[in-house]
Amino acid sequence: MSSWGNLLRISIFGESHGLGIGVVIDGLPAGRRIDFEAVSVQMTRRAPGQGSAVTPRREPDVPKVLSGLKDNVTTGAPLCCVIENTNVRSGDYSDISNTPRPSHADYAARERFGEACDMRGGGHFSGRLTAPLTFAGTVCRQILADYGVHIGGHLYSVGGVADTPFDPVNLSPALLDSLSLRNFAVINPSAETAMREHIEAARQSGDSAGGIIEAAAVNVKPGLGSPMFLGVENALASLLFGIPGVKGVEFGTGFGICGMRGSAANDAFIVDENNHITTATNHSGGIQGGISNGMPIIVRVAFKPTPSIALPQNTVSLDTQQETTVQIRGRHDPCIAVRAVPVVEAALAMGLLELYLRG
Amino acid sequence: MSSWGNLLRISIFGESHGLGIGVVIDGLPAGRRIDFEAVSVQMTRRAPGQGSAVTPRREPDVPKVLSGLKDNVTTGAPLCCVIENTNVRSGDYSDISNTPRPSHADYAARERFGEACDMRGGGHFSGRLTAPLTFAGTVCRQILADYGVHIGGHLYSVGGVADTPFDPVNLSPALLDSLSLRNFAVINPSAETAMREHIEAARQSGDSAGGIIEAAAVNVKPGLGSPMFLGVENALASLLFGIPGVKGVEFGTGFGICGMRGSAANDAFIVDENNHITTATNHSGGIQGGISNGMPIIVRVAFKPTPSIALPQNTVSLDTQQETTVQIRGRHDPCIAVRAVPVVEAALAMGLLELYLRG
Amino acid sequence: MSSWGNLLRISIFGESHGLGIGVVIDGLPAGRRIDFEAVSVQMTRRAPGQGSAVTPRREPDVPKVLSGLKDNVTTGAPLCCVIENTNVRSGDYSDISNTPRPSHADYAARERFGEACDMRGGGHFSGRLTAPLTFAGTVCRQILADYGVHIGGHLYSVGGVADTPFDPVNLSPALLDSLSLRNFAVINPSAETAMREHIEAARQSGDSAGGIIEAAAVNVKPGLGSPMFLGVENALASLLFGIPGVKGVEFGTGFGICGMRGSAANDAFIVDENNHITTATNHSGGIQGGISNGMPIIVRVAFKPTPSIALPQNTVSLDTQQETTVQIRGRHDPCIAVRAVPVVEAALAMGLLELYLRG
Amino acid sequence: MSSWGNLLRISIFGESHGLGIGVVIDGLPAGRRIDFEAVSVQMTRRAPGQGSAVTPRREPDVPKVLSGLKDNVTTGAPLCCVIENTNVRSGDYSDISNTPRPSHADYAARERFGEACDMRGGGHFSGRLTAPLTFAGTVCRQILADYGVHIGGHLYSVGGVADTPFDPVNLSPALLDSLSLRNFAVINPSAETAMREHIEAARQSGDSAGGIIEAAAVNVKPGLGSPMFLGVENALASLLFGIPGVKGVEFGTGFGICGMRGSAANDAFIVDENNHITTATNHSGGIQGGISNGMPIIVRVAFKPTPSIALPQNTVSLDTQQETTVQIRGRHDPCIAVRAVPVVEAALAMGLLELYLRG
Repeated sequence: MSSWGNLLRISIFGESHGLGIGVVIDGLPAGRRIDFEAVSVQMTRRAPGQGSAVTPRREPDVPKVLSGLKDNVTTGAPLCCVIENTNVRSGDYSDISNTPRPSHADYAARERFGEACDMRGGGHFSGRLTAPLTFAGTVCRQILADYGVHIGGHLYSVGGVADTPFDPVNLSPALLDSLSLRNFAVINPSAETAMREHIEAARQSGDSAGGIIEAAAVNVKPGLGSPMFLGVENALASLLFGIPGVKGVEFGTGFGICGMRGSAANDAFIVDENNHITTATNHSGGIQGGISNGMPIIVRVAFKPTPSIALPQNTVSLDTQQETTVQIRGRHDPCIAVRAVPVVEAALAMGLLELYLRG
Repeated sequence: MSSWGNLLRISIFGESHGLGIGVVIDGLPAGRRIDFEAVSVQMTRRAPGQGSAVTPRREPDVPKVLSGLKDNVTTGAPLCCVIENTNVRSGDYSDISNTPRPSHADYAARERFGEACDMRGGGHFSGRLTAPLTFAGTVCRQILADYGVHIGGHLYSVGGVADTPFDPVNLSPALLDSLSLRNFAVINPSAETAMREHIEAARQSGDSAGGIIEAAAVNVKPGLGSPMFLGVENALASLLFGIPGVKGVEFGTGFGICGMRGSAANDAFIVDENNHITTATNHSGGIQGGISNGMPIIVRVAFKPTPSIALPQNTVSLDTQQETTVQIRGRHDPCIAVRAVPVVEAALAMGLLELYLRG
Repeated sequence: MSSWGNLLRISIFGESHGLGIGVVIDGLPAGRRIDFEAVSVQMTRRAPGQGSAVTPRREPDVPKVLSGLKDNVTTGAPLCCVIENTNVRSGDYSDISNTPRPSHADYAARERFGEACDMRGGGHFSGRLTAPLTFAGTVCRQILADYGVHIGGHLYSVGGVADTPFDPVNLSPALLDSLSLRNFAVINPSAETAMREHIEAARQSGDSAGGIIEAAAVNVKPGLGSPMFLGVENALASLLFGIPGVKGVEFGTGFGICGMRGSAANDAFIVDENNHITTATNHSGGIQGGISNGMPIIVRVAFKPTPSIALPQNTVSLDTQQETTVQIRGRHDPCIAVRAVPVVEAALAMGLLELYLRG
Repeated sequence: MSSWGNLLRISIFGESHGLGIGVVIDGLPAGRRIDFEAVSVQMTRRAPGQGSAVTPRREPDVPKVLSGLKDNVTTGAPLCCVIENTNVRSGDYSDISNTPRPSHADYAARERFGEACDMRGGGHFSGRLTAPLTFAGTVCRQILADYGVHIGGHLYSVGGVADTPFDPVNLSPALLDSLSLRNFAVINPSAETAMREHIEAARQSGDSAGGIIEAAAVNVKPGLGSPMFLGVENALASLLFGIPGVKGVEFGTGFGICGMRGSAANDAFIVDENNHITTATNHSGGIQGGISNGMPIIVRVAFKPTPSIALPQNTVSLDTQQETTVQIRGRHDPCIAVRAVPVVEAALAMGLLELYLRG
């Protein structure tokens, strides 16, 4: 299903090549002013058309709010936002209904929905659906700001090129805020240069690159989340795996913790200079037993290389059940991770707001 | 919350030191015979007391079914299973209410629930709660077997010691079945020896070790799952992060795919010798766009080192807000990953059955 | 929340005086053709402007589908339908923000959402929100038709005037189909005349009238629904009480059964002329233990008199906390039950489809 | 499903003739002391064996709490309560697997679950399942008491005999409290005499009687509930229809409001002697637009006559598909409404606590 949450209920709709895409957000607290300039910043970060590292398609992605706001203030009623599809070239996708693109949803979706499935441009599985997700998450993030929460992310690595990782103990809200304004979000400027080169090299050879996004939320109150299946990790993972291209999610030191001994991996409790209880290290990524402990919440998300590449690829003709090749035309990001940073931030905000609303 | 699912609704209850633990499973199809010998095998795999790699506590963990079965056949009514707690030594945990154990849920849970929280032995956050989870998952697995699905897992790595990984393309049901009977589940026998040595070394130094479990399901029909937030990955991750100690979940090539180019990462469709459509590689782990494609579903789960170690650790006295140390007595596995293999398999079964029931 | 369901997830949005209202329907089976002429019939039945028994406002209520359909066939992706608000006169409602209208949601909603609540024209509580509900239910009804289910309703009574009630045992699909095309749905034509007179008399005195709608579904398979909280009655009631103005819901003989003895109230099983098992009477309304038994499902729904009346009414000024009066201008149905028949039918369809999809 | 709720998740299990029945309550706030004497009062009110108006079976119904409490205080972890079945006579029900009892769930359940369904004594559909429901509701009621909410109910009518109805405007907490201690809950003592005579007459002729329960909650804060599908009415109705034998639910003046004019039915706002905003009448039953307005919440629930009667009844042999008769032995209440008063109160408490927890 394309809906998520309980106190906060998010319902996303739309296809790449339909009239429009959008989202209904039910359960927003009333009386919160939405800053549409800040929304626009995030929509632009996610939108294509910002350089050769991303697709040359230009979509204005102007969110039109039909309900739930009065004078830009939430009324408590469901907020519906629609984004028109204005730049659709259906012809580019004529092949795919019969020859599923490798590592796209084409084949699996057809098994799921049959021939009625509309997979032009990826249909409802298109990365374009991250636009309403970004909108919804940005609204949530503004409400979380009232609780003091700051959220931001960066490209932890692209190909083999690594950015400076977050300091999981001393992670400043200011760093997250500044990253969250950047279209190519890295901490170390030289990493940007090297990552862009890596992506451009992939693009020029008709290929694509993967990447890892690291994101964080700071000033999250301790005691957020519930045991077992509604922990912070469960909630965030159930959202993050909804972003197209995600193949892995880890918190804190993540898979890296498996090679450590407990004496090194355990986060000792200390009393900090402000007499607050905190931890000396943060291998837990701010979450213990599924519940937040007040330390920065740290998550890393693995994005596969864009499956849409210009090189010809082997596939099967569904009509004839014979092997054949498919060549994907159209315009595609060589590295979806670049534009996915605001989407990951949005998912974090949605997940955390649901948990905050649970009190 | 400790409940999960919609068509299949699992509700887990109990604390380490209460009268009993258990699970209610609502939504099971009627008319399915439960093989309690096979259940017992999985309960035993999960149970402590199988050697020095695991805790010396011995708990019979006999599941008593109160409802939902008639002559061992499901009736369609909710199945409730209770497991008594018979081997409780409360005295062992007298320290922890005031001095939270590092990287345990003690501190976070207290922030969540206040002083009323019962954290003796980890309370509701205890690894012991994986017993009813294993029971529920094993019941689900037996029902999935009617659809032809086989599930199994192994210790992918412990410390730096790696087992032979699954072949993601040619993964035989027989291998999964045989792994799923083993208490120390590895493919390569020499890996077991090295892993046991690594764990024993940790134990002898009062420390603990982490590990990665790789699990798989084969013969899963293509077309399982729904877009965005009810994909196979979302469903499984929302369960897997409910297992104590899990810090990361990845599917297919997972984080490793981020360093690949699309031309290498994409799974080309081919026609196999039986004239079925399949893929030449399986970096997707059997899931594309959140939907199964018929290939083996592969997941890897990161378990942190057991946070309960014998060495003294730094913590804070909640009463005095002063730093102090805590030494954990009691009996604990030096590597929780070992006994977590059947738990991961159980979580897979629960997640997949929910999706199968959705049709 | 304005969303409902699990396998079928309906999310309704919009306010009376916003840009538009609509609904997202997630979980529709793929490959079903939607007949928009039939949809239009139901939208028109619900729409105002059909005579003096209903409000003279005319709203075209043309549903615009943004997603989820290709060539009018469901794709399996969420279907979003938007209806523009084109005939809004905000000035008519200037009083109500300070002087809550008796028996409207004004006061309760303000307590719920605070001053940010937008109650012009009833806001999100407006009867206008039954337009997307009717749309969604009509789509569901078309899918239910594939299972052979027929749904229809009529005005069981208005004021003291009663229509011929349904025969709960022999209820023909043809009768339901024909009622479901009528704007003023009664079985006995002379009842229409008397009801219209009753309503007109109320209108002319600046007042309003209540009514009871009886609706039914026939050819519903036996075995639909689940025990306790997901029975047919629970599911339908949880929807029906979402229609503005509903104060009671009863199934079968309903409250009337309380005065009967068991020997008269029990529905004896018989074998009918087609050798099918059926019941001689149908006091159960087709539902026993929450589960359908194959007999007609019969429900009656109590609608209160339109709270918007032309007569001056006592209320309180929220500013001054002093008693005062309010006079409601604007255009309102003297009897909302008349136009609510297709809405009740829609709710039935939504509820039954959710249960059918559960298998 | 036999589970309900989101913030509060109730999962009921058990069959009439299994080892035990019970409930898991997840989401209870931590730190609340449970008064088990008060629980016992409600369990006893519901339990059979209190005189000729109810069944002579005696079941101690002692709830045994396995988890979620420490020293009778909620810990925040799921609370599981088990009630053993100690007084089972399976032989009494040998007929019913082949000859479904009229107006019981036997036939419908068999269509739903097939032959595996265990319908001895009504199986999971048995009225006995109201014991854990009463337990859960009583726990919820104790927590609601911290918010000042009082809940109580009475037999509004049995057969043609009516009790004094609630005054919907001036309804004292003391009256509700005192009713909630009574096994035969009526306001007017002479009504009890007449009702008992009516029931006894039915019983002596091998028959049964129906009844209506009126229940109320006072001191409920205004602003409880959410629009459309999570209003107070939706939430309560979705629970109340889960009680065996319920065929109708109405709020405030209910079906009676349909014959009124708006000018009489509307609840004018007034300022009371304490300068609080209230309403002069309460036809709305404390709920407008689905949201509480601070007035007493009033609900009436229709219970059908006990379907288990001693008289022989017509039914069908499922084996032979021939008509036959069935005679129900065993011990049954001649009027289930009598013992259902605490069950209705329990359902109210569960529904209201879920809404309170939503904030």
